[in-house]
Amino acid sequence: MINRYFVTGLFMVLLTGVSHGALAGKPKPAAMADIIAATTAEDWRALDPENTLYMELAGGRVIIELALKYAPNHVANVKALAREHYWDGLAIIRSQDNYVVQWADPDAEKPEQKRKLKNAKATLPAEFDRAFDPKLAFTRLTDGDVYASEVGFSDGFPVARDKRAGKTWLVHCYGAVGAGRDAAIDSGGGTELYAVTGHSPRQLDRNVTLLGRVVQGMELLSSLPRGAAALGFYEKAEQRVPLKSVHLASEVPVGERTSLEILRTDTKTFLRLIEARRNRPEDWFHYQAGHIELCNVPIPVRRTRN
Amino acid sequence: MINRYFVTGLFMVLLTGVSHGALAGKPKPAAMADIIAATTAEDWRALDPENTLYMELAGGRVIIELALKYAPNHVANVKALAREHYWDGLAIIRSQDNYVVQWADPDAEKPEQKRKLKNAKATLPAEFDRAFDPKLAFTRLTDGDVYASEVGFSDGFPVARDKRAGKTWLVHCYGAVGAGRDAAIDSGGGTELYAVTGHSPRQLDRNVTLLGRVVQGMELLSSLPRGAAALGFYEKAEQRVPLKSVHLASEVPVGERTSLEILRTDTKTFLRLIEARRNRPEDWFHYQAGHIELCNVPIPVRRTRN
Repeated sequence: MINRYFVTGLFMVLLTGVSHGALAGKPKPAAMADIIAATTAEDWRALDPENTLYMELAGGRVIIELALKYAPNHVANVKALAREHYWDGLAIIRSQDNYVVQWADPDAEKPEQKRKLKNAKATLPAEFDRAFDPKLAFTRLTDGDVYASEVGFSDGFPVARDKRAGKTWLVHCYGAVGAGRDAAIDSGGGTELYAVTGHSPRQLDRNVTLLGRVVQGMELLSSLPRGAAALGFYEKAEQRVPLKSVHLASEVPVGERTSLEILRTDTKTFLRLIEARRNRPEDWFHYQAGHIELCNVPIPVRRTRN
Repeated sequence: MINRYFVTGLFMVLLTGVSHGALAGKPKPAAMADIIAATTAEDWRALDPENTLYMELAGGRVIIELALKYAPNHVANVKALAREHYWDGLAIIRSQDNYVVQWADPDAEKPEQKRKLKNAKATLPAEFDRAFDPKLAFTRLTDGDVYASEVGFSDGFPVARDKRAGKTWLVHCYGAVGAGRDAAIDSGGGTELYAVTGHSPRQLDRNVTLLGRVVQGMELLSSLPRGAAALGFYEKAEQRVPLKSVHLASEVPVGERTSLEILRTDTKTFLRLIEARRNRPEDWFHYQAGHIELCNVPIPVRRTRN
């Protein structure tokens, strides 16, 4: 009676030798599990340690891939912040239900007490979108979108673009990481970061600089207690969630790294995966949706060592 | 520097006398807070205690409005289950990141130990959708949808409809509550219920019977630790989250009820609210999306007493 068939957007695909194969009789379209099982090494790409952040919490490691091509200045600043250990000992200060968690210096508004910057910048011009460039990878999702004229995937990131306006941008799907800002559009820079923990808040697209995506450990952020103050800020200092450290993977000893690979989004395999999620072949599904929305397409991740 | 302008899909609107008013100079379109502040009693409707479930957890009360018009048989069965205290002492057995929590009898598969039913039924024919009826309330959202030809709101529930097929159905937005089932479409009935805690899994629409929506206490469900077993099931009995009780509001003494009102979705006020979320007039917003997706439209709730 317990529903074991309630299959989901598989987030972390562990390596497995199990091949599902076709049942006897009429061949069925491949399900995502079959597609993953049939992948070859060429279907995957390793995370680049130079563009990967490890955020260490008491509960474990959150891993963020940085989107160098979409927010180059913010990514460079976030890397500078990580190198000077800006966030170590700071905290998650906000958890708002169906929205975001946010980490920052709790004393950022106190000139005397706030964490000092070394080489990193306090603020940067916004990178809400960037110029469209045909050389940017783009696997178009043909299912349409409520917010943008075109959506798809670029090097593992959900993106949108508007050819007429000549712009492309990262999209606020679950797990998207961005730079919090004040009312002025150039008031962010990466010292305060947030991650989306609820239904995709697409109204934020092109209103905040997105700079990456959580690829492992989302459950450590999404299951945090919600803050009781306005906008989900924690009311008391002791409710905040300490950041043990936020470092670049490249600065962590090789033996302590988490070796992850992301399914490439520029392959026929990925197109087949999209189709397997658009029309679900698993027995449990009675009705085939025929469409899939951008943020419902899973981008599988697997661990290769450790 | 801390982003206090990062305004959200307001979920619980507490009564407040604060009027925001227009700033001097050019009048601005009303923001949601202004619209809520200007509502009159006619804009709200009280929850019907006969169609409201209180799920009592150690952390507090989760309140679910039942969708009588969309799943009449399941709602009747859920009410029968609540009246015979079927869930009292059972547990949340599953919490899967970016997907659902599910509560049920952990011993449901053990014939000797499972909780016995009295008047309620173990299974029911599916109510994945229902016949279109022009008498059903429907406030159409004109922004389009990836999954359905028409979407909108019916008595406070996000719904979709297909006039050509003559069908209408409840939609899996954040907080939607449905009846878990096994592979057979008539294997559900309400003894196992789930609530959506992540990005709207619209692929489930018309594949499971939805029967209600959480209107208060979502954060008590969404912040639960994720289960480490497949599909987010808790691995150990002691990880499960006990249900103190699940009762109809009408069976709870009046003094112990939570008096909630929901903003009516068949009013000009609600249309104005949609517009205020489609194009955000708050100063923080630099870019106006011009569109809004069904599950991003907030359905405000307020407490009137207690």
